[in-house]
Amino acid sequence: MKRISRFARARREVRVAVLTLLLWVPAAIAAFAQTDPLPSWNDGTVKKSITDFVAKVTTQGGADFVQPAERIAVFDNDGTLWCEQPIYFQAAFAFDRVKALAAQHPEWKQQQPFKAFLSGDKKALAEQGKKGLLTLMAAAHSGMTTDEFAKSVADWLATAKHPRFNRPYNEVIYQPMVELLAYLRANGFKTFIVSGGGVEFMRMWAEKAYGIPPEQVVGSSGVTQYGLDAAGKPSLLKVAKVQFIDDGPGKPAGINMVIGRRPILAFGNSDGDHQMLQWTMAGNGVRFAGIVHHTDAAREYAYDRPSKIGQLDKAWDEAKAKGWTVVNMKQDWKKIFAFQP
Amino acid sequence: MKRISRFARARREVRVAVLTLLLWVPAAIAAFAQTDPLPSWNDGTVKKSITDFVAKVTTQGGADFVQPAERIAVFDNDGTLWCEQPIYFQAAFAFDRVKALAAQHPEWKQQQPFKAFLSGDKKALAEQGKKGLLTLMAAAHSGMTTDEFAKSVADWLATAKHPRFNRPYNEVIYQPMVELLAYLRANGFKTFIVSGGGVEFMRMWAEKAYGIPPEQVVGSSGVTQYGLDAAGKPSLLKVAKVQFIDDGPGKPAGINMVIGRRPILAFGNSDGDHQMLQWTMAGNGVRFAGIVHHTDAAREYAYDRPSKIGQLDKAWDEAKAKGWTVVNMKQDWKKIFAFQP
Repeated sequence: MKRISRFARARREVRVAVLTLLLWVPAAIAAFAQTDPLPSWNDGTVKKSITDFVAKVTTQGGADFVQPAERIAVFDNDGTLWCEQPIYFQAAFAFDRVKALAAQHPEWKQQQPFKAFLSGDKKALAEQGKKGLLTLMAAAHSGMTTDEFAKSVADWLATAKHPRFNRPYNEVIYQPMVELLAYLRANGFKTFIVSGGGVEFMRMWAEKAYGIPPEQVVGSSGVTQYGLDAAGKPSLLKVAKVQFIDDGPGKPAGINMVIGRRPILAFGNSDGDHQMLQWTMAGNGVRFAGIVHHTDAAREYAYDRPSKIGQLDKAWDEAKAKGWTVVNMKQDWKKIFAFQP
Repeated sequence: MKRISRFARARREVRVAVLTLLLWVPAAIAAFAQTDPLPSWNDGTVKKSITDFVAKVTTQGGADFVQPAERIAVFDNDGTLWCEQPIYFQAAFAFDRVKALAAQHPEWKQQQPFKAFLSGDKKALAEQGKKGLLTLMAAAHSGMTTDEFAKSVADWLATAKHPRFNRPYNEVIYQPMVELLAYLRANGFKTFIVSGGGVEFMRMWAEKAYGIPPEQVVGSSGVTQYGLDAAGKPSLLKVAKVQFIDDGPGKPAGINMVIGRRPILAFGNSDGDHQMLQWTMAGNGVRFAGIVHHTDAAREYAYDRPSKIGQLDKAWDEAKAKGWTVVNMKQDWKKIFAFQP
């Protein structure tokens, strides 16, 4: 019997080894899941509102379970995923770009609003009003092919620095939100940007910064004109004409046009996101609306109702009335930027 | 030594079992790969051009390897994935819809082009020209919320039948192309529709028909207006104003606006796809352009250069000159529709 028992023991040993091997993958996943997926968020009702929501929609057999295909999450960008002060980063890009292009445009020295802008005459520039600003923006965003525009954004990102944080603009992104995006994706969500920013501008850095691929970026866009050059090579010329403005009531319209499903989670920070949050919450089943409230002047900026950039007023009132999640940056975020201690 | 040898044999046996177990998954995949992924395609140069291309871009370490994220494949819909004769299916929907709405619009009896259309007066309708047709299309596609429009498409699909094949329109789809879409996805491609058809119309059935989710459908769109009803419930009203026409030179523009990456494979069937094919082929590395040529009047329809619907002329010339793949439906497809014997 000894031979047999030894034989049996050998079989058993190997069986245990095989089972261990087969159990390894889920065990590793389970071990990973026990570490905090949102380490830059302080514990509290805000963090709990997020993890509770994700638990509900991902619990198989639960009353609130949502199929992975329907787990669409949308995020505003300026002021929600990256900083938007002291001016929108895309405006900083446009201003730097106009300066860089000035050498090729000697006529700008005599032409408003370029003359006022290039000479630093703030009073004269202010007199040009909103139209003057739009003209400067258009100069940086049209009259070139999409490839040339992409290069100009890449060049700018490689050299320009945020005036306060002294970092490339694509590093001035909120670490807690980067963690939230990854956490949602790990739970089967498809994450989208839905922003008033230019779609071609954002795609240049969104994948590296947030893990969001080009085809999941929804934004404002200009008209492009298809053409062939003398060698028959096709290009798309960016012309100075608006195609679509993805802001305010344009956000639900953009979601409908590009994504075609109603999100179950939306995050914004200003009244420009109000309609997107309403649209998200109006669907059936459990839903999540979040607002990033800028309350931390020491680590970032503090602004809301009276702000010219990122005004948060009506959306905040509705958030309070309806119990949406409002993130108090000072209180709820352990860390704001990855580069901060 | 007998005990040891028996013991060793047992260990060896189990080792073999473990190895078999570990080999099972890739072996199963390999076995699966040996079955023909394109059973409705006849063997020949056309089929081989597809499988050769896929082999090249998916061979790790090969000169032509393409990262999965960049494996973007775009497909026209009308005449490429589903039939477009005797009239575009979306026009059939619009005509049926106007008839269904007529009871709610008694004024149409006295108003052109509705009067001519509803009374079957073909001569009077022809006199209304293209503008008359667009007015009929607009009546079926605007003046309602996006939810109401979706319901009208679903209702139509559930009842309307193709006049020749006597099947619901969403079954009049090309089986070889359905196989091609699945084959590409199994090889890490992300498949998109890029069609002149209405994006909201196509999304109602594209996922079931082709396995293409709403967020991967690019199409023409109308302006939508966001609003809240008396109860505060948001809706998007479809207004009779074009937002974007995703046809001809609009296709590269639509790809740039919505997808934001240049496809490595494109399939079309008409001159409306010409620019999309050019745009796809103008990128770096190996690329694939395919055209479905309608040559089979017995099983489907035969038309090309002089056709009013799906005219194939300039794109065909370029395909011949540049060696793009041209599918001869009669010759290259074993079966056209799944419902055919």
